[in-house]
Amino acid sequence: MFFDLSSLIYRNLLAITTEELIARHPFDGVILLGSCDKNVPAQLMAAVSANKPMMFLPGGPMLPGHYQGETLACGTDSFRIWTRHLAGEISAGELKKAESCLYGSIGACPIMGTANSMQCATESLGLSLPGSATAPAVSSEKLRGAEETGRGIMQLIRQDLKPTDIVTREALENCITVLMSSGGSTNLIIHLTAIARRAGIELGLEDFQRISERPRVLVDVKPSGRGTVGIEFHQAGGVPALMKELEPLLHTGVLTVTGRTMKENLDQVSRTCNPDVIAPFDHPLKPEGGIAVLRGNLAPRGAVIKRSAASIMKFRGEARVFDSLAAAEQYLLDPDSDMDENKAVILRHYGPKGAPGMPEFGNYMPIPPKMYRRGVKDYLRITDARMSGGAFGTVVLHVCPEAAAGGPLGAVRDGDIITMDVDKGLLQVELTPEVIAARLQAAAAPVRESFERGFVRHYIDHVLQADEGCDFAYMQPHL
Amino acid sequence: MFFDLSSLIYRNLLAITTEELIARHPFDGVILLGSCDKNVPAQLMAAVSANKPMMFLPGGPMLPGHYQGETLACGTDSFRIWTRHLAGEISAGELKKAESCLYGSIGACPIMGTANSMQCATESLGLSLPGSATAPAVSSEKLRGAEETGRGIMQLIRQDLKPTDIVTREALENCITVLMSSGGSTNLIIHLTAIARRAGIELGLEDFQRISERPRVLVDVKPSGRGTVGIEFHQAGGVPALMKELEPLLHTGVLTVTGRTMKENLDQVSRTCNPDVIAPFDHPLKPEGGIAVLRGNLAPRGAVIKRSAASIMKFRGEARVFDSLAAAEQYLLDPDSDMDENKAVILRHYGPKGAPGMPEFGNYMPIPPKMYRRGVKDYLRITDARMSGGAFGTVVLHVCPEAAAGGPLGAVRDGDIITMDVDKGLLQVELTPEVIAARLQAAAAPVRESFERGFVRHYIDHVLQADEGCDFAYMQPHL
Amino acid sequence: MFFDLSSLIYRNLLAITTEELIARHPFDGVILLGSCDKNVPAQLMAAVSANKPMMFLPGGPMLPGHYQGETLACGTDSFRIWTRHLAGEISAGELKKAESCLYGSIGACPIMGTANSMQCATESLGLSLPGSATAPAVSSEKLRGAEETGRGIMQLIRQDLKPTDIVTREALENCITVLMSSGGSTNLIIHLTAIARRAGIELGLEDFQRISERPRVLVDVKPSGRGTVGIEFHQAGGVPALMKELEPLLHTGVLTVTGRTMKENLDQVSRTCNPDVIAPFDHPLKPEGGIAVLRGNLAPRGAVIKRSAASIMKFRGEARVFDSLAAAEQYLLDPDSDMDENKAVILRHYGPKGAPGMPEFGNYMPIPPKMYRRGVKDYLRITDARMSGGAFGTVVLHVCPEAAAGGPLGAVRDGDIITMDVDKGLLQVELTPEVIAARLQAAAAPVRESFERGFVRHYIDHVLQADEGCDFAYMQPHL
Amino acid sequence: MFFDLSSLIYRNLLAITTEELIARHPFDGVILLGSCDKNVPAQLMAAVSANKPMMFLPGGPMLPGHYQGETLACGTDSFRIWTRHLAGEISAGELKKAESCLYGSIGACPIMGTANSMQCATESLGLSLPGSATAPAVSSEKLRGAEETGRGIMQLIRQDLKPTDIVTREALENCITVLMSSGGSTNLIIHLTAIARRAGIELGLEDFQRISERPRVLVDVKPSGRGTVGIEFHQAGGVPALMKELEPLLHTGVLTVTGRTMKENLDQVSRTCNPDVIAPFDHPLKPEGGIAVLRGNLAPRGAVIKRSAASIMKFRGEARVFDSLAAAEQYLLDPDSDMDENKAVILRHYGPKGAPGMPEFGNYMPIPPKMYRRGVKDYLRITDARMSGGAFGTVVLHVCPEAAAGGPLGAVRDGDIITMDVDKGLLQVELTPEVIAARLQAAAAPVRESFERGFVRHYIDHVLQADEGCDFAYMQPHL
Repeated sequence: MFFDLSSLIYRNLLAITTEELIARHPFDGVILLGSCDKNVPAQLMAAVSANKPMMFLPGGPMLPGHYQGETLACGTDSFRIWTRHLAGEISAGELKKAESCLYGSIGACPIMGTANSMQCATESLGLSLPGSATAPAVSSEKLRGAEETGRGIMQLIRQDLKPTDIVTREALENCITVLMSSGGSTNLIIHLTAIARRAGIELGLEDFQRISERPRVLVDVKPSGRGTVGIEFHQAGGVPALMKELEPLLHTGVLTVTGRTMKENLDQVSRTCNPDVIAPFDHPLKPEGGIAVLRGNLAPRGAVIKRSAASIMKFRGEARVFDSLAAAEQYLLDPDSDMDENKAVILRHYGPKGAPGMPEFGNYMPIPPKMYRRGVKDYLRITDARMSGGAFGTVVLHVCPEAAAGGPLGAVRDGDIITMDVDKGLLQVELTPEVIAARLQAAAAPVRESFERGFVRHYIDHVLQADEGCDFAYMQPHL
Repeated sequence: MFFDLSSLIYRNLLAITTEELIARHPFDGVILLGSCDKNVPAQLMAAVSANKPMMFLPGGPMLPGHYQGETLACGTDSFRIWTRHLAGEISAGELKKAESCLYGSIGACPIMGTANSMQCATESLGLSLPGSATAPAVSSEKLRGAEETGRGIMQLIRQDLKPTDIVTREALENCITVLMSSGGSTNLIIHLTAIARRAGIELGLEDFQRISERPRVLVDVKPSGRGTVGIEFHQAGGVPALMKELEPLLHTGVLTVTGRTMKENLDQVSRTCNPDVIAPFDHPLKPEGGIAVLRGNLAPRGAVIKRSAASIMKFRGEARVFDSLAAAEQYLLDPDSDMDENKAVILRHYGPKGAPGMPEFGNYMPIPPKMYRRGVKDYLRITDARMSGGAFGTVVLHVCPEAAAGGPLGAVRDGDIITMDVDKGLLQVELTPEVIAARLQAAAAPVRESFERGFVRHYIDHVLQADEGCDFAYMQPHL
Repeated sequence: MFFDLSSLIYRNLLAITTEELIARHPFDGVILLGSCDKNVPAQLMAAVSANKPMMFLPGGPMLPGHYQGETLACGTDSFRIWTRHLAGEISAGELKKAESCLYGSIGACPIMGTANSMQCATESLGLSLPGSATAPAVSSEKLRGAEETGRGIMQLIRQDLKPTDIVTREALENCITVLMSSGGSTNLIIHLTAIARRAGIELGLEDFQRISERPRVLVDVKPSGRGTVGIEFHQAGGVPALMKELEPLLHTGVLTVTGRTMKENLDQVSRTCNPDVIAPFDHPLKPEGGIAVLRGNLAPRGAVIKRSAASIMKFRGEARVFDSLAAAEQYLLDPDSDMDENKAVILRHYGPKGAPGMPEFGNYMPIPPKMYRRGVKDYLRITDARMSGGAFGTVVLHVCPEAAAGGPLGAVRDGDIITMDVDKGLLQVELTPEVIAARLQAAAAPVRESFERGFVRHYIDHVLQADEGCDFAYMQPHL
Repeated sequence: MFFDLSSLIYRNLLAITTEELIARHPFDGVILLGSCDKNVPAQLMAAVSANKPMMFLPGGPMLPGHYQGETLACGTDSFRIWTRHLAGEISAGELKKAESCLYGSIGACPIMGTANSMQCATESLGLSLPGSATAPAVSSEKLRGAEETGRGIMQLIRQDLKPTDIVTREALENCITVLMSSGGSTNLIIHLTAIARRAGIELGLEDFQRISERPRVLVDVKPSGRGTVGIEFHQAGGVPALMKELEPLLHTGVLTVTGRTMKENLDQVSRTCNPDVIAPFDHPLKPEGGIAVLRGNLAPRGAVIKRSAASIMKFRGEARVFDSLAAAEQYLLDPDSDMDENKAVILRHYGPKGAPGMPEFGNYMPIPPKMYRRGVKDYLRITDARMSGGAFGTVVLHVCPEAAAGGPLGAVRDGDIITMDVDKGLLQVELTPEVIAARLQAAAAPVRESFERGFVRHYIDHVLQADEGCDFAYMQPHL
């Protein structure tokens, strides 16, 4: 739990360490390797700041596991199995057996979670070789890609092509387009903003909103779909085949680590050999992009929802409000609670400043077993926290400003009426501005376990207190 | 080519090296690791002779490769692609691209070739943990199996359970039953005979013949079927699920490295979750076992055929006879030759003594392109050599006695009439004993590239000349 | 150069990273490994803050190198060779050959520089097993020590003996006693202060001063003496034999990672087998401790000098003042400058805040060749920077407050009269307080190469500006 | 014990394995690495037969150990310590402590035993880079040498310079000259003969005898002298400095792996910087070469003695004869036996055929404690076995023909008079030819523990029985 609390902060720590290592050693260029949620964006942030010729070699996804003939992909299926266990569908013994099969090999979780979303981002940004993001960690292709990367960096050094030549606004927009069409992780909003800022480019939620209007979800992998990244998506052609479908939406003049433009790269790519996994642009799996931005009096500066993994697009109902995860869990698992699908559960004070560190608590609110047994497999959750990229369900995240920074989320009380309309981009609480203001005046932050020493304490003391507000910028300090 | 010539001899060299290492070091017990054709049998031979508590950890199969949506499994598909290339179906450029995708990861070739046949043999003999033979080399299961093996050997040492307690005649018969029902490699006849002899057990071709009458081919993997060992077979339950089907045919009282009997092991196993890959015993894929033994005046001491990968069960036609692989190839690729499907091609003088070293030349006789283009994809080949476990086609192998040891194969001439009837176990040449004897009298061995120095020379001088005849015993010297 | 500038800041970065890793993972205890200047103190700082059972395994010193029959120890001999080269005694070709022999193996520099001083500190603090600090990196003893450490940590976890049980004020005083008697590095003043503060103990310069009065230099290794750490000192008995000599000065009731007290540890130790290398306490190599603290109107809050490696104990002469290393070098190498042994060279604005980062520039002021050729091999240098633990010569360091924080060093001008008396602990400039104050008022900081982005910038913006003053505390933030 | 019995046979097994690996893989050239007794000659034998461009990278000696201020070098000092223990000089506890300090690091035993003798042989043959044989295993020099070797092999391949271009009769004579002057191991007689034969060159004992007449022992290392190979000899200049002294005796026109002649190599070498360790040719440590050949009616085809490590050059006295090591040990350790320095102890039936495998039993005959306590530290031992290169004392070895092959050693009985005169090259028993013949007629081989299975059995059955006689040739079959 503690670790989870500091994992996003840790991204920044890794970024500054890596930047120092790249910048202060007499390297002509570097190859960076990584595959998990935080080490990929951290290294990209570092590489952009250090700005020496760089190629990123994504470690690649793991193999899925198997249990009794069924494919298991950690994260997504872990959440699913636990829900079934909580609802009494599978015993503790079977749960344990299935859990031991969740991880098929070394590598990143095989779903389009944050890890694979970031690996695909390095490729769509042009910072990795075509096809390298999705080649499984244990595959021969990965080894061949590593060799090619070794030769490639020597060429990049001769060309003196640097990260800031590649990480342009156009490249970032390409990357967001790919993200939206692959059902990628909401965490990338945070990471791409940070990487962009390192390159001197301001990305805002409005950029994500604008770009998300054009692409549609084409890739049928978990958690939005059925396949896995390393097997189905990769064999169907991976990011290159996906970008081939998306080509009309892309800025193809951007440079990449091949030393050539994205256009030149795509000219050598065939369309997918498996349109069941990478759908044609004209026949998308879902007609909209994977992530939507919501605004309204509950999220004046925006909130996000992974609509491709959600089932509720429109909602009006009562709020149930929690200031701690433990309290929310207790309520949701209580067979005698008044919880049903007409309630919106709000978990707050877990934003960047509130937790501190904006943990991935958005998906830790389980399906109440009594609802699950009735066949109800989703309900509306709203939070200022983040969620795992492997998670699914209707969860509104990153509500901004966060409760701990005086956001209106802090004003909601049990029974208030919440309305959400994803298609219209709305997230509201039916309260007047005056009521909200008055309630916020009276509100006090919940008491949190404190960090008496250490890095997190330092952040709180030295960095956070200097910030006037608290928004995504917090996570991308001028480091 | 040279290497191939000495690969079977090399098995013996590895066996004596390994035996010395096990026997002369103060080890209480050993874990042996291996996955390829020769290193598995060599180590088993060594382990039986050294006879200290031992567990074998099979390295496991590789992942298959992929090319344009098609699964590629090295060996089997390599032969197939080459045939298509020779027949002009695919260009040299495409051949090269496809070839670069043949090997999906580290590990043994993913077909039921000699490597996987031997890995499955270690498990069916009871020398490896249940399920370990087919877990892919790069899988988490392999790592878990390695840990379990580490704990297991400590238990075996305490029990003082030794290889000769496990490698009994009954266990060897179980192993042959599994071999026959999985479409395994003909090379196992040679390897199992050698391992048995190390344990003081004489296995003869007649044993293989007798046992082969009861099992049927149940496993649908290449080269006999469609799937791969590491993916389809393993996920369907692997050797344990196969043995569960075969249980009525097995000696289940034998001991295994679990410290328990095969019966106790099988009691914990469920039937396959995928009967398309592991067929029920009552509905086999093929009604007979995978390998048949042939005899007759062309093979007085026997010959073998992998009937599960062959398409011609009955034949009468003219012989075309070659004393060198190069000459045979030239004839088969010549568009103007008289070759057609009514000819039997004989390649001889490549037995244990003839090559020397009994190379895997049985499958190096290609489908003549002119036949392939007519849709003919098989023809009869007869040889005293071996063939790759990944090969397919109608190839009669191990003809014994070999030509170089005065076998009747040496007497055949172009135009002689050959008859084969697999169901009846017959392999004949329509010649009288007198003619055969007279021709053999006149025959001279072909001139071979000589080995002036080295290990092979030593074998010829010191071991072979001491042998009166030359049969399988040659490959299992009393070392 | 850049790297050097940030190396001490990097210590803090590593400390917070390591603390997070220890604290946030579910470890019962940890073994930390390190051998170089910054990674040893950084890990100790982290371990104390995380406060889980911990043993430190020092990586150990390298072997010395050899060139034409002479032993070469990197650092110390590198400085010496360069000086000879600058003075024309050896050619560039020979310099290169000798340089290629400076590093005899992997491991820490074999002199009692900062690396070995810190390794010896871990042992004298009780955080490493007896004898482990000086066992060469490549020795069998190191491997045996690693095994013993592995067993030891399991015992410590059972005992629940934590770093703060060991790092007490008494243990720190023992450590300083060992430092003073071994001719160890001045950098340890900074590192021990930081480690102590992590344990809630305030060490000040006055502590070092007080403790330094009792021990004497006993260990004859470079840079103060002749031998090396890994060969001569270790074979003579290392830290245990040294502490045996110092036993009357030590607090022997303190606990150590052996699970026993220092007294119990020392009871098992014999006196040195080589009193030429570890002198008896009654016949020390030098009658005082290795490091002295100076004060006066030039260093109101103190300065330090490694008297064991210095040759000038008393001085009165003119100052020559430089605000940049390059300017100082130019002056010192200029054959026409007015430099002679009656001048004190002052290098300033390289303190924690001034550089920023307090680089090791104290020893980068060379012996002017024209003096060297006259046989003069030392002169007085005064700076607010640090110096390498392998350096030698009369260098007053850490002058506090530093020039960039308004210290009187900033007021000195060429020609001012400097007086130093090491025995009396004095460092003065012959100026009135009024003159100093007036000059400081007028002074401006020199323009430095700036750090536009990155960690160092962050420090300057977020940490340094918050500090009122700037002293050693800067380098030991409450992180 | 068992392992020791087969270690020399194992050399041959490794030689044939390695030859196959080099010859049958498509290598353009190879770098071979090794440092111990058997793997160096085995690989050289293989390399010469395979005859592809090759460079040998000697692994190098270990660091010596230290115990209470004394340098310990495994082998030599192990024997010495045991003798002192047997004589009651040191307790079992102290023995154990000292033993744990025998091995200072990874690498070959630091004395001029068989391992270092063979490493020096690769260098003096011209198969390794100058200086590489003695650079300690853990030194930076070893790493630099590895890099240089990597570059070197590429050059050799371009030049197509093969082992047989380098291993000429002249090169072998150089190698023997170096061996004789460094107090190297008697085992090299066997290994060099085998390597030579692989190159088609017949080396006989008479060659060693002839060459041994000119060089003198110059190198002061254990077991003949005082220093170690990795420290004293290497720092004094190693093999290049030694060859510089010996230059007038060498064939300097031979080619080496530098691509240049030995002459060209030596032109770049300075004379030793430490004549105490490498004595000038004119002032040798000992006036003769290290190894002498003896002949006479007790060794018609020769025997050898390492005179540089022996103290008895002339002897006449009674024989005490043993057919088993255990019996000899019992006699020698028995305080009531009649053993004294006027007896010659004969251990026989441990030659190539007798043991089988010619084990290193020559030095397993201890100094009788009762003699040791009287100050007698040597006595005459005679055997058809070999001895460790680290051993010392007056031991006549390799007596040929061996007892098991009908040599006169088999005829000696207790009380027979033995005479030895090293300077005259004599080894006699005072018996008439008729008596010897008659006794041999009646003699029966002792019963030995048998090898029922395995490699050694194979040798006995297939190789040994084919040999008419049994001499050194046995150990160098035409494999």
